[in-house]
Amino acid sequence: MKKIETAEILCVGTELLLGDIVNTNAAFLSAKLAELGIAVYHHTVVGDNSARLREALDTAANRADLIVMSGGLGPTCDDLTKETTAQFFGRRLVMNESELGKISEYFREMGRPMTENNAKQARIPEGATVIVNNYGTAPGVAIEGENCVAVMLPGPPCELEPMFCEEVIPYLQKNGGLCEGVIFSRNVHIIGMGESSVENELRCLMNGSLNPTVAPYCVAGEVRLRVTARAENKETALCMCNEMIEKIKETTVGDFIYGIDCESVEHALADILRTRGLTFACAESCTGGLIAKRMTDLPGVSEVFLGGAVTYANSAKEGILGVKHETLEAFGAVSEQVACEMAEGARRVYGADVAVSTTGIAGPGGGTAEKPVGTVCVGISTARETCALTLHLSPRRDRAYIRTVSATNALNEALKRVKLMQ
Amino acid sequence: MKKIETAEILCVGTELLLGDIVNTNAAFLSAKLAELGIAVYHHTVVGDNSARLREALDTAANRADLIVMSGGLGPTCDDLTKETTAQFFGRRLVMNESELGKISEYFREMGRPMTENNAKQARIPEGATVIVNNYGTAPGVAIEGENCVAVMLPGPPCELEPMFCEEVIPYLQKNGGLCEGVIFSRNVHIIGMGESSVENELRCLMNGSLNPTVAPYCVAGEVRLRVTARAENKETALCMCNEMIEKIKETTVGDFIYGIDCESVEHALADILRTRGLTFACAESCTGGLIAKRMTDLPGVSEVFLGGAVTYANSAKEGILGVKHETLEAFGAVSEQVACEMAEGARRVYGADVAVSTTGIAGPGGGTAEKPVGTVCVGISTARETCALTLHLSPRRDRAYIRTVSATNALNEALKRVKLMQ
Repeated sequence: MKKIETAEILCVGTELLLGDIVNTNAAFLSAKLAELGIAVYHHTVVGDNSARLREALDTAANRADLIVMSGGLGPTCDDLTKETTAQFFGRRLVMNESELGKISEYFREMGRPMTENNAKQARIPEGATVIVNNYGTAPGVAIEGENCVAVMLPGPPCELEPMFCEEVIPYLQKNGGLCEGVIFSRNVHIIGMGESSVENELRCLMNGSLNPTVAPYCVAGEVRLRVTARAENKETALCMCNEMIEKIKETTVGDFIYGIDCESVEHALADILRTRGLTFACAESCTGGLIAKRMTDLPGVSEVFLGGAVTYANSAKEGILGVKHETLEAFGAVSEQVACEMAEGARRVYGADVAVSTTGIAGPGGGTAEKPVGTVCVGISTARETCALTLHLSPRRDRAYIRTVSATNALNEALKRVKLMQ
Repeated sequence: MKKIETAEILCVGTELLLGDIVNTNAAFLSAKLAELGIAVYHHTVVGDNSARLREALDTAANRADLIVMSGGLGPTCDDLTKETTAQFFGRRLVMNESELGKISEYFREMGRPMTENNAKQARIPEGATVIVNNYGTAPGVAIEGENCVAVMLPGPPCELEPMFCEEVIPYLQKNGGLCEGVIFSRNVHIIGMGESSVENELRCLMNGSLNPTVAPYCVAGEVRLRVTARAENKETALCMCNEMIEKIKETTVGDFIYGIDCESVEHALADILRTRGLTFACAESCTGGLIAKRMTDLPGVSEVFLGGAVTYANSAKEGILGVKHETLEAFGAVSEQVACEMAEGARRVYGADVAVSTTGIAGPGGGTAEKPVGTVCVGISTARETCALTLHLSPRRDRAYIRTVSATNALNEALKRVKLMQ
């Protein structure tokens, strides 16, 4: 196999073209390929259509060393990726008895009957390599052509993602397809500063450096900076990134950085809580479970996260968290006073060291002149003190954005507070 | 403008090719174009690279009547969509004073300084149509070429989505670009039956009908059937879809259908709760806020959803929900007995008519031989009775999948129960 320098991601599925599902596979595969030092210049999506798939394969084979394909390997009759790709590479499909055995075993194990169309999944192009699927029934396939390698993986992310890491990377490595050099990126996470302000501040740094490069991008109310270095090995690239990050920290942007490569603010919070041996809880009104959901997305978080009360109704704020009726009457549910009592209540009922709360107007309805949509109060409570702040998010933003940014800010307030605790 | 029959979605952004963000715009635009009767045959993604963007434009212009582009209109210097596309169509960029005024007004309103690079966004190709952006600073642009129309929209979904509905559709309509005929789809939602079983059951119906077509697909542990009809108008297409859906309901698949075009099980639940005047609450352990989050994703849900207790720690299950210490000792936290007490507790403390609970092992750690990863107990409580069931999900699935399917099943149990209530 020749060294793979460039890859194209080719996803197959009419459900993608009809907008029924979002293409998370392209993002996942891109991130993994970047880590391997393989440049991805194109994502392409075509439907369950043999002619258009063949055309896309032809284009991709002419511009990329590796084509990673997803979808169309399933049992249903509109799944035609394997047939079309085998034909493109001039290979016949033959029944693979070992894969057929595994598929029947899988159905036995799950106590479900194996239907006839499931057997189709065990047909493999001649001379191709089976990419083992330990997460579902359809095996993946790798075909080594003259100028490029095509790897076909099933569409469901819960199968594709582990298969790529556990099977495809070792396959490419074993066959000498991976380059020596690497492209390595670090991501600087920023909350509280807009994208154009960040760029304005860092313009000189960004323009003055080709390697590493610095590029800002937005993710759900956060700005991130991607610092990317090309070097002979990961260690050198990492050093180059770190030197650039030190320069960034010296600017005013530095004050708004909450983490580097920490995936998310909840990851950063869980890590520091674990290190400090502290526990966390939350009380949510407008974010309605989003903070708890984001914390419990993290495996093993039960060590530090005790739970959260979603108190959408005022009666629940009073009954469960002990928010005073008079406070609700005097200041309204969306107020710093109520946010404080909610955070205090959550800390008390869960017996946590730190608790945060949110109460606000996520819209589209419910806004007033005094408290428009986007007004969100965040409370933070520790044994030492309880306080609150108000976010004024743009009422032009939608409900999902306001909820996400509110949760992010509440988690960031908890993170800042825990950093100050001994 | 000629009638638009086919469209291509062309997204621009190195952050997409590096896998930093997921391309939700392609899914959104595809769904909207399908509703308009416009067939989408390709999604393409290229980076912030002028040469590759030009190449992609050239390919798209040769095979589609409409190119909908997203991304690269922002203020930063790697945003080059407008420049490259203007050049492709042979147009100069000129400063649009009205747009420049709006941008400065936006920054005044938000109390943030307008930086020099923001002004760049007000430059518009000669003879092009401005697509007004009421949700951010970068205006969109439509250029009518000889053989195709290119529409450029900003990348952030919270801007792109309303702009497409409020500005682009009327623009195409006004200029006579929309076809008479429509492609219309209805989606049948199924919980509790696998994709290949559904297809096996419906094979005859699927193979025997070209219009409408019936296609199964999976979304996060649910199977959906997309029934798509082509007709002269929406009414006829709807009738054709409905006739097919009636045939599907007569098969055994019918027993597992929870809704048609209801977006999600939480939508279906909220709707029926509202109709029946009932209230709902939840108690979550392994789903950790996901049920509450999904309920509160829905605007105006406070009428029917009172809240939820995320009780990750056993102490919280006892303290907040009143789960008995003896029950936890005797049966363990993951048991139908605890699920029942959690559901009862949630119903009591929130004062709700119906409550559900989840307690299970989402993994990757925490599984035992007796209760492997994927064992999830779901409780349901009403004034009349409280009961529980256990899901045995495949331990090969990842944490996110197990949590999503558990939440979906809990919501579906609530939905089934409410349907039986008077």
